[in-house]
Amino acid sequence: MQAEIISIGTELILGKIVNTNAGYLSRELSNLGIDLFYQTAVGDNKLRLLTVLKRAMHRSDIVILTGGLGPTVDDITLEVIAQATQKRLILNAAVLKDIKVHFQKRHIPMPKNNMRQALVPENARALKNEVGTAPGLIIPYDEKKVLIALPGVPQELKPMMQRDVIKYLANNFAGEGVIISQAIRTTGLAESQVNQKVKDILNLKPPVTVGIYAHTDTVDLNITAKAKNRLQAKRLIQQIERKIRRRLKEYIYGENTQTLEEVVIAALKKAKKTIAVAESCTGGLISKRLTNVSGSSKCFPLGIVAYSDKFKQSLLGVPKEVLAKSGTVSKETVRLMACNIKQLAKTDLSLGVTGIAGPKGATKNKPLGLVYIALATPRKIQIKEFHFHGDRDAVRQRASQAALDLIRRYLTS
Amino acid sequence: MQAEIISIGTELILGKIVNTNAGYLSRELSNLGIDLFYQTAVGDNKLRLLTVLKRAMHRSDIVILTGGLGPTVDDITLEVIAQATQKRLILNAAVLKDIKVHFQKRHIPMPKNNMRQALVPENARALKNEVGTAPGLIIPYDEKKVLIALPGVPQELKPMMQRDVIKYLANNFAGEGVIISQAIRTTGLAESQVNQKVKDILNLKPPVTVGIYAHTDTVDLNITAKAKNRLQAKRLIQQIERKIRRRLKEYIYGENTQTLEEVVIAALKKAKKTIAVAESCTGGLISKRLTNVSGSSKCFPLGIVAYSDKFKQSLLGVPKEVLAKSGTVSKETVRLMACNIKQLAKTDLSLGVTGIAGPKGATKNKPLGLVYIALATPRKIQIKEFHFHGDRDAVRQRASQAALDLIRRYLTS
Repeated sequence: MQAEIISIGTELILGKIVNTNAGYLSRELSNLGIDLFYQTAVGDNKLRLLTVLKRAMHRSDIVILTGGLGPTVDDITLEVIAQATQKRLILNAAVLKDIKVHFQKRHIPMPKNNMRQALVPENARALKNEVGTAPGLIIPYDEKKVLIALPGVPQELKPMMQRDVIKYLANNFAGEGVIISQAIRTTGLAESQVNQKVKDILNLKPPVTVGIYAHTDTVDLNITAKAKNRLQAKRLIQQIERKIRRRLKEYIYGENTQTLEEVVIAALKKAKKTIAVAESCTGGLISKRLTNVSGSSKCFPLGIVAYSDKFKQSLLGVPKEVLAKSGTVSKETVRLMACNIKQLAKTDLSLGVTGIAGPKGATKNKPLGLVYIALATPRKIQIKEFHFHGDRDAVRQRASQAALDLIRRYLTS
Repeated sequence: MQAEIISIGTELILGKIVNTNAGYLSRELSNLGIDLFYQTAVGDNKLRLLTVLKRAMHRSDIVILTGGLGPTVDDITLEVIAQATQKRLILNAAVLKDIKVHFQKRHIPMPKNNMRQALVPENARALKNEVGTAPGLIIPYDEKKVLIALPGVPQELKPMMQRDVIKYLANNFAGEGVIISQAIRTTGLAESQVNQKVKDILNLKPPVTVGIYAHTDTVDLNITAKAKNRLQAKRLIQQIERKIRRRLKEYIYGENTQTLEEVVIAALKKAKKTIAVAESCTGGLISKRLTNVSGSSKCFPLGIVAYSDKFKQSLLGVPKEVLAKSGTVSKETVRLMACNIKQLAKTDLSLGVTGIAGPKGATKNKPLGLVYIALATPRKIQIKEFHFHGDRDAVRQRASQAALDLIRRYLTS
């Protein structure tokens, strides 16, 4: 069984938007053990899409199309599919009702255009869109082959894929063998340092391979295994995972799509501890990340973004003299920020963060990327000095990651 | 002149990494007025790459390949290019020297494998890699056609593109005309509502076209114009831009990649006003967005994330009785949050935000997505009730956008 993906949209080939759908769908197909050989992106042009689609139908068993299902004349996918498969488009009453309900809920009259989205090729199955109006479509044709058309908006596409398409493909197409993969997430080491520690593992050959991928604040090691069944593939992965864990130890914070904030909130809940955060250069990012996690209010009652020195004095009790002598970005200031918000919030733990995120504000002694982070715990206070690379966004992201990682290491050590 | 992009790498078709290069290269080609019709991604497989490459060479004048230029056996690009163009690979002394220097600088002996990267097709031009070891290649063939091979690592690809490839394409291929485009950014209307207001404009045919693209919190209208030169293209865009501005008026907050927080901070600076923010459900996101903008400390001295009711009482002065009677998510609470942080911070303006971001916490009377936002100004206080759709992330993003937009509208009206 062989699949390919066609992404449709002039926005894509003008580079206005990044094609994240292709990556997401590829991962899901690979989890199903379905080989994917091509991803193609084309603009909103009927003739070119038709050419690409016909070639794909010829060489692949499963063709997933994304985008071009909207209500406007730019949206050509349905028409081209009808032409390529020689199927008629029929108004589907159930889909039309869903679209009407969508607008009713929002107290907006349904624009006439949206009627087009209720057209469904004969013998196709329509997939409910819980977010927008365009239904997904599963269109079997030509014996054992299928076209699957999904909306281009990731928030609409993903639920359909998770709820309907994966099940459909697993039941009808997932052939021999599965490919599964698992990511081990690390933070605190540069990509080259991780590389150094697992160099031999990165050279493994199939059926198990390991890739390294660096994000701004995380280095992932992706283990991929192909085997006859899930269990065997899982075993292959576990062997390598154990090796990696022995090498990278405490630098590993999670797996797959787990975020550091999820790990931290879970650890706080488990330890029944609370934390407060006093931020300067990260400007609310740490609070925002902690509250990404549903239920975080139990362990995170208070964050203060004291972006001006005035409130570092009045709310966080950093004396004028300390700010004048040691500076806003200093060990002394960050120590007081952490200690005093802990007192104010009456939490078990607290964080203070101050630094120079740039692009302005650097001096000879206090370069861009210098960040002090303090973690106050019931009995002591840890203060760390960091020098982060990158632009304002990267420095802030890395600082928030280092701060969260201090909490994680404290709670899990 | 017609171009296409081929991205090479099994990581891409397994969905392990997102193909940002394709988008970046597409934008640069469009700036040069070169039409791009296809983006294709293939794995590290010689036969499939050869098929894709031959088709591309047939239908396009310029083919840009990315990836597969590394030193390992997985890296097949050079070999396939040699086969497709029937050119010999010749060891290039200058490239070899660059590679040796690369390793010398890092005090690492050069692995033998890297020697392969000094092979260059005959009559090709090698482009210096200032970050890694793989050179870029400009390979003219078949009269007026060219293959351009670039490394897959974005940090290596971008400098080569900026320094060498753009100049080469501008001199040799950027024929008649340029394509330029401009985005008009709106917030506060759903995609279908924007669509309704500019339906006729979305139907325009070249040389000026307008596309609509919905993000979580923004609906963009992208105007694209093709003309003989920049000035003429700019004029075509301006005509349409004026029309769009007349239709969408105050819903428009910016252009191109401008963010709402940039617009808000600029407006605050211009008006010499300061603002403080008291957040509950957005959990620091509004503070974080304001401080995305360098220099925001001048107008944003203080943010408080009062994620627990305790600190809504003690720090933000919302009486226990109000929280008990009206609830944490209520007009009364948000009014007091905004009023009291304004007093505390002694700012000109202030925001209060409270709501139910989900997935838990909803009740019959207070559904998921219900958010109250208060903007306190020197003379009065505006309170708005919103019902946002989507998951936790989307509700929080939309709430922060609506809050920032209240500031923008106040300052620009």
